[in-house]
Amino acid sequence: MDKKQALEKLRDRFGDRLVETGAARAAHGRDEGGYDGPAPDAVFYAENAHEVADAVKICARHRLPVIPFGAGTSLEGHVTAPKGGLSIDLSRMNRILALHAADLDVRVEAGVTRQQLNAWLHDQGLFFPVDPGAECTLGGMVATRASGTNAVRYGTMREQVLTLEVVTATGEIIETGTRARKSAAGYDLTHLFVGSEGTLGIVTEMTLKLYGLPEKLMAGVCRFPSLSAAIQTVITTIQSGLPVARIELLDELSVRAVNRHSGMAHVEAPTLFLEFHGSPKAVDEQVESFHAIASEYGGSAPEFASKQEDINRLWHARHQLYYATRAMAGGKHVCTTDVCVPISRLGDCILETRADFDAAGIFGTMVGHVGDGNFHTIIAADPHDPVEMQRAEDLKEKMAHRAIEMGGTVTGEHGIGSGKRKFLEAERGASLALMRQVKAALDPFGIMNPGKVVMTDDRDDQPCSGRH
Amino acid sequence: MDKKQALEKLRDRFGDRLVETGAARAAHGRDEGGYDGPAPDAVFYAENAHEVADAVKICARHRLPVIPFGAGTSLEGHVTAPKGGLSIDLSRMNRILALHAADLDVRVEAGVTRQQLNAWLHDQGLFFPVDPGAECTLGGMVATRASGTNAVRYGTMREQVLTLEVVTATGEIIETGTRARKSAAGYDLTHLFVGSEGTLGIVTEMTLKLYGLPEKLMAGVCRFPSLSAAIQTVITTIQSGLPVARIELLDELSVRAVNRHSGMAHVEAPTLFLEFHGSPKAVDEQVESFHAIASEYGGSAPEFASKQEDINRLWHARHQLYYATRAMAGGKHVCTTDVCVPISRLGDCILETRADFDAAGIFGTMVGHVGDGNFHTIIAADPHDPVEMQRAEDLKEKMAHRAIEMGGTVTGEHGIGSGKRKFLEAERGASLALMRQVKAALDPFGIMNPGKVVMTDDRDDQPCSGRH
Repeated sequence: MDKKQALEKLRDRFGDRLVETGAARAAHGRDEGGYDGPAPDAVFYAENAHEVADAVKICARHRLPVIPFGAGTSLEGHVTAPKGGLSIDLSRMNRILALHAADLDVRVEAGVTRQQLNAWLHDQGLFFPVDPGAECTLGGMVATRASGTNAVRYGTMREQVLTLEVVTATGEIIETGTRARKSAAGYDLTHLFVGSEGTLGIVTEMTLKLYGLPEKLMAGVCRFPSLSAAIQTVITTIQSGLPVARIELLDELSVRAVNRHSGMAHVEAPTLFLEFHGSPKAVDEQVESFHAIASEYGGSAPEFASKQEDINRLWHARHQLYYATRAMAGGKHVCTTDVCVPISRLGDCILETRADFDAAGIFGTMVGHVGDGNFHTIIAADPHDPVEMQRAEDLKEKMAHRAIEMGGTVTGEHGIGSGKRKFLEAERGASLALMRQVKAALDPFGIMNPGKVVMTDDRDDQPCSGRH
Repeated sequence: MDKKQALEKLRDRFGDRLVETGAARAAHGRDEGGYDGPAPDAVFYAENAHEVADAVKICARHRLPVIPFGAGTSLEGHVTAPKGGLSIDLSRMNRILALHAADLDVRVEAGVTRQQLNAWLHDQGLFFPVDPGAECTLGGMVATRASGTNAVRYGTMREQVLTLEVVTATGEIIETGTRARKSAAGYDLTHLFVGSEGTLGIVTEMTLKLYGLPEKLMAGVCRFPSLSAAIQTVITTIQSGLPVARIELLDELSVRAVNRHSGMAHVEAPTLFLEFHGSPKAVDEQVESFHAIASEYGGSAPEFASKQEDINRLWHARHQLYYATRAMAGGKHVCTTDVCVPISRLGDCILETRADFDAAGIFGTMVGHVGDGNFHTIIAADPHDPVEMQRAEDLKEKMAHRAIEMGGTVTGEHGIGSGKRKFLEAERGASLALMRQVKAALDPFGIMNPGKVVMTDDRDDQPCSGRH
């Protein structure tokens, strides 16, 4: 690696859009999961794919690591720079390029945020459904295979991407697919890049599927006498094929956190936040079917919000839960983790995890996109108490291994980053060798976001740092 | 390549399940698309993944090509052996291994056919939706990223596979994923193998999503005064978000072929074959909405089949169209091709293709899974008339290039095989280099189904033969 020469060439090429201040570097080596550094050597604010390609070419020539950066809202140390390198910030590439309303698709740059896209689409009667909690970029959402509350009905980023423009590890600009809804033409490069966390290339543009705003939408809450009753309701709802649009579980503590943080007054009990989409008749029928199922498990009559602003408040509060828990945890360090299991195992998985928390005496909220079998814990621990910090880490580890034993995955939507590499090894076994082969083939110099997802031979054996 | 030694070792290991008769070899080098040979050197009837792994290991050591074989129903020369080698026939691996009804998934071996699976599932109230016309194996359907008439509502094989067991090119057995409905854990190896046509490894088992049989199902036909009117009806239906389960277009000639072959008496006009799934109320509402749209374009009142056996006959007739056209074409050679375009371009694409056929004086039926933007032509030409054969080939080529120009793909569901490699190059451009890198990484000896999908350097530069 010839860092000095590489940085010189980058300065020459990009002038004052190559920023080397301590503040910019620090801000780009940090994420919302609590990983903070090591920072990159420099930050480049890219304005188009050709610039990204040029930057990667310079870095490739000098073996300087490249770390793509969107909004920095990832949770598993995706943007740290364990070997230094160049952070390529794509947030200025935030143009919506082309709407094909008749085909229900849109072309955007990677730095567009999901909120920006949906605000822009609203007058067209269309929306983009994937909604992780944060104000993240769509490029970051592709990179981490993100999902959110609507995934139970509409799918995750995996299902929404029609084609990607990618800058490869050697600085070529390629397109991975077409706008056709299906194709049997060759290897599925699109899905190879979705979820690759910037370790195989940098997504610069994408074509995404869109959906018509539902003719009718009902959103509300349903309370349960126990966590178990709420979970059984979810399982029965999904197994019955009811096409619920959102079905989110909040445990008692989560409801308390939401009440405090968002000024709401929900009864503090295990609660499902719900939404139904469809024609007026279809929605009424769905609500009726759901109510019948919930009643069987002692659920309250669903209470629906009547005004759009109340619906918005409800989901905003849900999306803010991570921040709400952080606020309730006082000065404690907060980290979040997620797993996803076959839905038949969801009840055991959540209840055993709750018991682990209680036994360890650790404060944490539990919340989930439970319709997918996916749930999160938000764990608080005192950074000055190494025993408590270790207990929190142990809980995270236990969750991952329990998910594997139950036939599930160590992360439903947060990704691997540097934080979950050891769990990926435990989950993927022999297939990890193939991931390494793919990585070595597409990133021959090992410069793309090193130390994330897979470790390739000795090139990135440095410890993943990031205080977590 | 040391063919003699390899075959000797295979004989030693597998005894009389290694078959080297001319008949078995010829039958395994031929597909339903009219590609006939070159044949493999031997056929191995595998009974489990460990045997497949052992066979691949022997082949890898001696650099003998390996060609996976399911039912031989592929259409683009997927099973020919341009460099000889071992055909691994997976049809005896046809066990249904585990049903997880509560999770709506099933584990099967690669040799199970879709008909076998659905017959087995029927009593459980479940079904598997992907339905290419042929009696094909699920392993072959994974390999070619198959779809069919239900894809408009349920998706293609791409959307149905949760995880695969794969024998790699070096004879390792790996699992690509888990039973969790979503995951952000590492590279998407599952989707890398879906559609890879046996060129990266051999799928031996899979876990597939299942669906509850719809509470109500209505199937029927709707006739139109013109091809254009039928297509406009489809486009408006899809754009309006109507969740139609099947919407298949048959042109006038296709209806005639179906009438003759399946003893039906449909009026010979451009026709949509339709199916609606859902609750009784939802289906009624869908039918009503569809009828309103069709009426605008001069469609007849939809005529619905009242008995299950009539519904079965309707779809059986549709699935038999390829054979029906072949019958109507007399002694002529018949080949089929498919393309897929954004739905806004579907009308132009079909009508311009129809005009090409008329101008060339070539007999061919047109039919399509038009809800996805996907349509097929079944082209007949006299094998003793080189001019007509060339015209048929030219039509196929023109369709592929038109699809590319319209932002679509050269194959929606048939795959690349050896027949469409040049079109893949035209469609994929620079990204083909990445496919080659992936191929070289995962198949270091270039033994996996050589000459299909991508050509890698000089290893498989032999002409794809196959009389087509």
